[in-house]
Amino acid sequence: MGGDHAPAEIVAGAVQAYREHGVPVVLVGAPRVLHEALIEHDAARQIPIVRAEEALEMNAGALASLRRPRSSIAVACHLVRRGDACAVVSAGSTAGVVATGKLRLRGQQGVLRPALAVVLPTAPRPTILLDAGANAEVKAESLVQFAHLGIAYAETGLGVANPKVGLLTIGSEAEKGDKLVRRAHELLAAAPGIDFGGNVEGHDLLTGVVDIVVTDGFTGNVALKAIEGAVRFTFGELRASFAESRLARFGALFQRSPLRDLRDRLDPEAYGGAVLLGLNGTVVIAHGASRANGIAAACALAARLAAAGTVAKIGERVAGTHRPHRLWS
Amino acid sequence: MGGDHAPAEIVAGAVQAYREHGVPVVLVGAPRVLHEALIEHDAARQIPIVRAEEALEMNAGALASLRRPRSSIAVACHLVRRGDACAVVSAGSTAGVVATGKLRLRGQQGVLRPALAVVLPTAPRPTILLDAGANAEVKAESLVQFAHLGIAYAETGLGVANPKVGLLTIGSEAEKGDKLVRRAHELLAAAPGIDFGGNVEGHDLLTGVVDIVVTDGFTGNVALKAIEGAVRFTFGELRASFAESRLARFGALFQRSPLRDLRDRLDPEAYGGAVLLGLNGTVVIAHGASRANGIAAACALAARLAAAGTVAKIGERVAGTHRPHRLWS
Repeated sequence: MGGDHAPAEIVAGAVQAYREHGVPVVLVGAPRVLHEALIEHDAARQIPIVRAEEALEMNAGALASLRRPRSSIAVACHLVRRGDACAVVSAGSTAGVVATGKLRLRGQQGVLRPALAVVLPTAPRPTILLDAGANAEVKAESLVQFAHLGIAYAETGLGVANPKVGLLTIGSEAEKGDKLVRRAHELLAAAPGIDFGGNVEGHDLLTGVVDIVVTDGFTGNVALKAIEGAVRFTFGELRASFAESRLARFGALFQRSPLRDLRDRLDPEAYGGAVLLGLNGTVVIAHGASRANGIAAACALAARLAAAGTVAKIGERVAGTHRPHRLWS
Repeated sequence: MGGDHAPAEIVAGAVQAYREHGVPVVLVGAPRVLHEALIEHDAARQIPIVRAEEALEMNAGALASLRRPRSSIAVACHLVRRGDACAVVSAGSTAGVVATGKLRLRGQQGVLRPALAVVLPTAPRPTILLDAGANAEVKAESLVQFAHLGIAYAETGLGVANPKVGLLTIGSEAEKGDKLVRRAHELLAAAPGIDFGGNVEGHDLLTGVVDIVVTDGFTGNVALKAIEGAVRFTFGELRASFAESRLARFGALFQRSPLRDLRDRLDPEAYGGAVLLGLNGTVVIAHGASRANGIAAACALAARLAAAGTVAKIGERVAGTHRPHRLWS
């Protein structure tokens, strides 16, 4: 029931996920509305519906999710908790989904803070940025755990072998940055099981110099939105430049490929979608503006993560971050 | 002596500033080298030289500036301190210039932390972002002072009347963000003399929704570099898209205006250049890759700021931020 184009595009995406990606999907929400949407796709017998009469508003904050224990996202989390589903996909309010996920699925044992991971469109392979906004304030130990969460995601969700981790800061030398980052640098450099590539800066986020960039949720959210804004700004200026130039006829070409393809690829509404890592279940948050293709891709990602045992892999990695008990020292 | 193209382009820029903008310039550095460069422009009688035998390396950190009290940037700051010059322009290492400026010019009375302000290429008028990296960690009170520094800069340097201030965070509601931001929001909303427009997010940096965006130097530096990286990335992808498409012949056009103009305008090497605000003197840091045009523009900005009394204006504004003494309460 979440997303700017719900329920029509969400239902269409679910049908597409089932038919094109072979992902069995359960829809959660208002039964009558969902049933009617399924009938339009002749899919009422293929996609079951679980009733949830309430839904979070798209601008819902964290508190709203506590006040609505029977919202569609809360019910969806409950299905995962009971073992009746293995992942949740939502295009609803990020803050609402994060809060509901934390509350209903709980953090995995040993995970200090769940984190929101987004995939940046670097080439030849994507870069994962986390935390993109689940935690405004964290400790250095959490940044080390974020590296483990990101590695598990890269390996299981994106098929990246031996991903390299970078720490987002404001200078490449180890002593640069604030206290949090300097401490995290020490911990990451000493952490077993992490291929630490050192500090990276804001301009490295799109160069693919590392596979995973860890940062606190405040910095990560600002950086992600700054990138989205800069890409949108550049395309806007580009269109304006074409329009006012002798090359104005190119303005029409702007609507065609490859420029349109590029814009779509760089648009957060296309590459967007985030994974909430560190909970007892897989949660994929599609962009609020997602249409059927985006929802189908999010469902396929969720199925891939669930099938590859991302949650278990995170559990193993995080268990290793605890210092061994020194029983006989 | 600082900058990737020093001294040739720096000297050329100084000559241009004198001839085209009417700004009297003094060059500081190795006399023989500078004199030879001036002769090439037939300007040896127009531009005086002040000797400084040492220079900071382009990758110099903050400590190097302490070890080199006779570096060209230190001598230039000394000229301002003695009243023999009214502003410093450098294309040297930002960290080195910031550290030297703080040490040699000292912070203005009442200024908690000097800040680095950059101008983003928003339309119809630019947005000032500060702090862009002078302080990795600050208190909420400093963020309020940054607003005053930014207002003085906008009014005197850019001719903006009644500039509006935004606070960079991760949600538009007052309660969003970390502790620092929530406290700064309260202080800014209550501060006299500040037209506070509320919270802004990363994607607002280039929409011109406010004239000044205040943030800590860690977040500001990451956001600035993320924007620079995203603009560069988008142009790179654009070029690649052209190259591999049927529209490949447009690849050649890419080298012509208006695309080149746009790229130049959005390139940090063009719009870059920062002002270190809050010191007893005006310091403009041109981008390291600056050529003559950029240096001349930086000199013109420095002259404008000095002539408009930016330092005095900051002093007045910051004096107002102290709570009045309650003598007879």
